[in-house]
Amino acid sequence: MTSPVGLHRVIEPSGVLPQAAWRLDASPGIGPDEVRVRVERLNLDAASFRQLAQAYDGDGAAVRAAVLEIIATRGKMQNPVTGSGGMLIGTVDEVGPDSPLGLKPGDRIATLVSLTLTPLAVTDGLAGWDGRGEQVPCDGHAILFGRSIAAVLPEDLAPEEALAILDVCGAPALTARVVSGYREPRVAVLGAAGKSGSLSLAAARRAGARRLVGVVPGDAEARRLRESGLADEVVLADARDPVALAGALGEPADVTVVCVDVPGCEHGAILATADRGTVIFFSMATSFASAALGAEGLAADVTMLIGNGYLPGHADLALDLYRTGPGVRALFAHRRTAD
Amino acid sequence: MTSPVGLHRVIEPSGVLPQAAWRLDASPGIGPDEVRVRVERLNLDAASFRQLAQAYDGDGAAVRAAVLEIIATRGKMQNPVTGSGGMLIGTVDEVGPDSPLGLKPGDRIATLVSLTLTPLAVTDGLAGWDGRGEQVPCDGHAILFGRSIAAVLPEDLAPEEALAILDVCGAPALTARVVSGYREPRVAVLGAAGKSGSLSLAAARRAGARRLVGVVPGDAEARRLRESGLADEVVLADARDPVALAGALGEPADVTVVCVDVPGCEHGAILATADRGTVIFFSMATSFASAALGAEGLAADVTMLIGNGYLPGHADLALDLYRTGPGVRALFAHRRTAD
Repeated sequence: MTSPVGLHRVIEPSGVLPQAAWRLDASPGIGPDEVRVRVERLNLDAASFRQLAQAYDGDGAAVRAAVLEIIATRGKMQNPVTGSGGMLIGTVDEVGPDSPLGLKPGDRIATLVSLTLTPLAVTDGLAGWDGRGEQVPCDGHAILFGRSIAAVLPEDLAPEEALAILDVCGAPALTARVVSGYREPRVAVLGAAGKSGSLSLAAARRAGARRLVGVVPGDAEARRLRESGLADEVVLADARDPVALAGALGEPADVTVVCVDVPGCEHGAILATADRGTVIFFSMATSFASAALGAEGLAADVTMLIGNGYLPGHADLALDLYRTGPGVRALFAHRRTAD
Repeated sequence: MTSPVGLHRVIEPSGVLPQAAWRLDASPGIGPDEVRVRVERLNLDAASFRQLAQAYDGDGAAVRAAVLEIIATRGKMQNPVTGSGGMLIGTVDEVGPDSPLGLKPGDRIATLVSLTLTPLAVTDGLAGWDGRGEQVPCDGHAILFGRSIAAVLPEDLAPEEALAILDVCGAPALTARVVSGYREPRVAVLGAAGKSGSLSLAAARRAGARRLVGVVPGDAEARRLRESGLADEVVLADARDPVALAGALGEPADVTVVCVDVPGCEHGAILATADRGTVIFFSMATSFASAALGAEGLAADVTMLIGNGYLPGHADLALDLYRTGPGVRALFAHRRTAD
């Protein structure tokens, strides 16, 4: 019997779920409820790629070697420092008779579960990647479990475009849910010119936000965000500086969405949020203790959410926001070029 | 001008809030909105004390030396490994003319903001402490800011009793708020025989929980929890083992409260929670990335809250639950003796 959450693929330590495992069994033979995918591209989590790029001073060959080593050692792409992974696209190769995912061989898909729990083997030494961007051309295979989630790639979007959207599709979905729980709220998005930030702005608008404030750290991003038209107000501030951030924002937000993938933004987000407001942390660089103790230390009655990457319908919502929002599309296009 | 959040006490790095600072200025002279407290007892955060005790193999003298070194170096008691602190009791020594806290010299108080942001100096070398328990007799002084929170100690309770309650008073308050948002929910508390666990059970009961399940790791705790009468059902399981935990619980919970102060309980809590349910993480040992990626990897539509130590009225609620609940009192008494 194979486990729908992949327990049978855990090599060590035994008894943990695949995401918590140090090493997975990525062998290509599939169980009755599994699916094997021929991988064509990995999309590394932004925090993971940033850490690797910094650790190797931007030396692409060294970053590539490090990623290869991680995958070979762990049977999955999970950065040991950040704990984060990313996602992949590929083509369905073989489907077990009991798979509930509704996929068939030949489907071109993106995985919506993290690479941190997806058995993965690489066969081309990542020869097509220069180690300088989050998108990694790749040949190899990956395994999906019974309870994994995958989306068939839409035909109207380029694969790397779809992957970039689906990678962050939890953020707009949760933002929409939270925003719709307030009456005409003021919403602040930290890191608003990035992928999850721009989609969260668009989602908040659709969910009924009264006023949208986008916070960015630099002039170039401020200009691009203004041009996108996604925010009512663009504020230039370093989200890691709580005092400066709260000052720049002025009136506190009812909902603050943290999409900045650098550490140290917890206190700024809390200080920027009104009493009985909500902070949604999407950055993998978030420190649990810093958020918990920061709110207590500031006597801040705010609800703090750990950004869950899964909500029903999250992929469709994100794709729709992208298709119907030229501002989102422009910010994504810039980011791909910049990477 | 002094800052209500204590910015003027930050020595390094500059510009951060006191909780994020490496080092605070704990000098005894107070600003116009500050309060100086003569400290008589520290209550170390459970995760912090556990880390220290393990790091020094339970050698009390070494633990004491480590705590002294931290306070001397940092000007506050913040464990550099866990990032957590604790709280203190003492007597108000001097009150600045502009302090909004409503305290007067001679008041015996407990601080309800974390030690991680409270300037602290120790003058007795912690001579009265054997390094073997979380409660640390202590002579020295601490500083409260304009926006700090402190509670005058109730006269009907022993100080160490009140301190133990107030230390975890955020947990029952947030549990009550979340539980009251569901209709007759099933509530599971992991680590139910501890301080925050037992208060959370009592709070959930009062807030309308239909069924209360208390999860504990050992037979002795199971027996004590049964005797307390706080839970409808007592389940023996290791919260770090998701598969075993979910199996032992059977029906998933609408609200799962994590009060276990060891790492690795994120996935178990998520797997134990029903769709559209809520997990409240109170343990400082919680990993943000593990929770976020775990929910995604399990395709679990659960709301995950970072346990905020502050809610208005939290101290009064916790004291009231303790006073009116003999079961809570019995579990606290045991824990004090065991420590």
